[in-house]
Amino acid sequence: MRATIMPKAHDVQIDNVPDPVIQDQTDAIIRVTRACICGSDLWPYNDGPNVERQRMGHEAIGVVEDVGSDVRTIKRGEVVIMPFANSDGSCMFCEEGLQTACVHVNFFGNGSLDGAQAEAMRIPYADGTLYPLNIGEDDALMPSLLTLSDVMGTGHHAAVTARVRPGGTVAVVGDGAVGICGVIAAKRLGAEQIVIMGRHEDRIALAREFGATDVVSERGEEGIERVRQLTGGFGVQSVLECVGTGQAMDTSMGIVRPGGAVGRVGVPHYEVINGAQQMFYRNVIVAGGPAPTRGYIDELLPDVLEGRIDPGRVFDRTIGLDGVPDGYRAMNDREALKVLIRP
Amino acid sequence: MRATIMPKAHDVQIDNVPDPVIQDQTDAIIRVTRACICGSDLWPYNDGPNVERQRMGHEAIGVVEDVGSDVRTIKRGEVVIMPFANSDGSCMFCEEGLQTACVHVNFFGNGSLDGAQAEAMRIPYADGTLYPLNIGEDDALMPSLLTLSDVMGTGHHAAVTARVRPGGTVAVVGDGAVGICGVIAAKRLGAEQIVIMGRHEDRIALAREFGATDVVSERGEEGIERVRQLTGGFGVQSVLECVGTGQAMDTSMGIVRPGGAVGRVGVPHYEVINGAQQMFYRNVIVAGGPAPTRGYIDELLPDVLEGRIDPGRVFDRTIGLDGVPDGYRAMNDREALKVLIRP
Repeated sequence: MRATIMPKAHDVQIDNVPDPVIQDQTDAIIRVTRACICGSDLWPYNDGPNVERQRMGHEAIGVVEDVGSDVRTIKRGEVVIMPFANSDGSCMFCEEGLQTACVHVNFFGNGSLDGAQAEAMRIPYADGTLYPLNIGEDDALMPSLLTLSDVMGTGHHAAVTARVRPGGTVAVVGDGAVGICGVIAAKRLGAEQIVIMGRHEDRIALAREFGATDVVSERGEEGIERVRQLTGGFGVQSVLECVGTGQAMDTSMGIVRPGGAVGRVGVPHYEVINGAQQMFYRNVIVAGGPAPTRGYIDELLPDVLEGRIDPGRVFDRTIGLDGVPDGYRAMNDREALKVLIRP
Repeated sequence: MRATIMPKAHDVQIDNVPDPVIQDQTDAIIRVTRACICGSDLWPYNDGPNVERQRMGHEAIGVVEDVGSDVRTIKRGEVVIMPFANSDGSCMFCEEGLQTACVHVNFFGNGSLDGAQAEAMRIPYADGTLYPLNIGEDDALMPSLLTLSDVMGTGHHAAVTARVRPGGTVAVVGDGAVGICGVIAAKRLGAEQIVIMGRHEDRIALAREFGATDVVSERGEEGIERVRQLTGGFGVQSVLECVGTGQAMDTSMGIVRPGGAVGRVGVPHYEVINGAQQMFYRNVIVAGGPAPTRGYIDELLPDVLEGRIDPGRVFDRTIGLDGVPDGYRAMNDREALKVLIRP
């Protein structure tokens, strides 16, 4: 079958790889019907892959083609959402809804598991990982359903861990697809003021449609000052950190008000959290991490199916597998917000 | 009147200072009937005071001697608990119960306000700050009531911000008075396993009486390993960081399990929080700060009055004002756990 591989930084190729097969009896094989490129794929694209010829992609919807003999709930022919991490569905972390801390967790497209930007994939712990949908494989809702694999669940996780509350004040740091989904999530949880920090006009316009009330394009100290001005001098109750750089984290700590929380979902490219004393004296909470998107589907799916949220609008380009290399380039050049793949 | 002053490190004196007077019409004057020495007083004792001749002490029970014309609820003659910070009782942070983020917050005994290790004090924002007790000034419960000024409220804050839950697993880092109150708080909130990390036999014995189920005396990597062994390899759901050193914080991050929380109440003597990536990948929460003890009194007071908790047992020495200099020495030498002062 054909799959996306990354031999080195800035080099994405579509190549033939062996068809996936059942290795453990809890595995399933899915044919990928929708996948996409994630902002986090741009980290290896720029810095280099984890392993030689890394198989890329961790967001997918697919059709189940085969299941191992120990798979109990997932059936051949079902349309399924594949969250970006596998989880066994039975350990204490899965029971608590923190599937990304599953004792058997692993991440798709990270070098050890199959990547989603491919024709097919092997899915470990199929029962705990895959989420079956009672819907046709070409339903018009596919783009929004695909976001439940990662970006919408991740934006929701940022909002939950930042403790967004009805009537609350929120800032979203970053106007990528996750940041925009963070706006949707904050609005959905009842936030009254939602400040988006970003500088791409088209993305800001989309964020406004989804409920952003204010825009701050400045960065660093100037950006912090602007957010404070917009919030009576205090900062916001909830900050959704959707970038992952040290600067974005410093900004987040600068705009959160006393007693507020920063929900981090940007994959951190920094080693320490600065300002441990100011954080303490202001009783600021820092939380977040890899979103347990598998666990959030129950809550978010009805809103997608009934049209209350439309996160699929973050996709502004649709390509086939052959278009993937250029899709990476386009996202890296900020020419595309998020690229949908129909393998 | 007589008050405790600290001219320089390791130099505590009792000296005559001007009697306090009403300066703003929201002030009250209290005669101090109980005060104490705090573990956090040992930081300036060792590192030097914030200002010349710093007035020391931030925990008190007293009798109201005078009130300004704008004081509405606090009356002359009332016995009151004085939390370690003043708060106006009316700003949005006070409304939310985060009195230590009050827009008018200030801290007693920090160099700008009066200290509690004295015969009397001026209390700004008396209505928002003081908590009246319907009890005689020499009631036998005074030691426990005095802890509501700081250490018991602070231990409770550590437990709350570390999200201690019924049936949960907890580790308390530090066996000082706050750590021991943290054990009381964790037990009170229903924790099932409470690991105390410390190495003073008498304190450990008291912690066990209050509900600690396990003791870890090792420090650093060895201590982390021991806590993990005690918790099935995963670490605890809630860590109460009651020391404030960088090492204590690193230990806290090492023993918290995925999805768990560290509640920091030790005044931090470090600038950054290490392990930002591990914290992220494990979805660990870091929270805490100066406890809003004023806000917690409503919840904790009935348990003290009805004898369900007895945090006053952290006091193992009672002195008069003249004994304060030696009281600092005794606490600094770990000869006394916590010293009660009857001025």
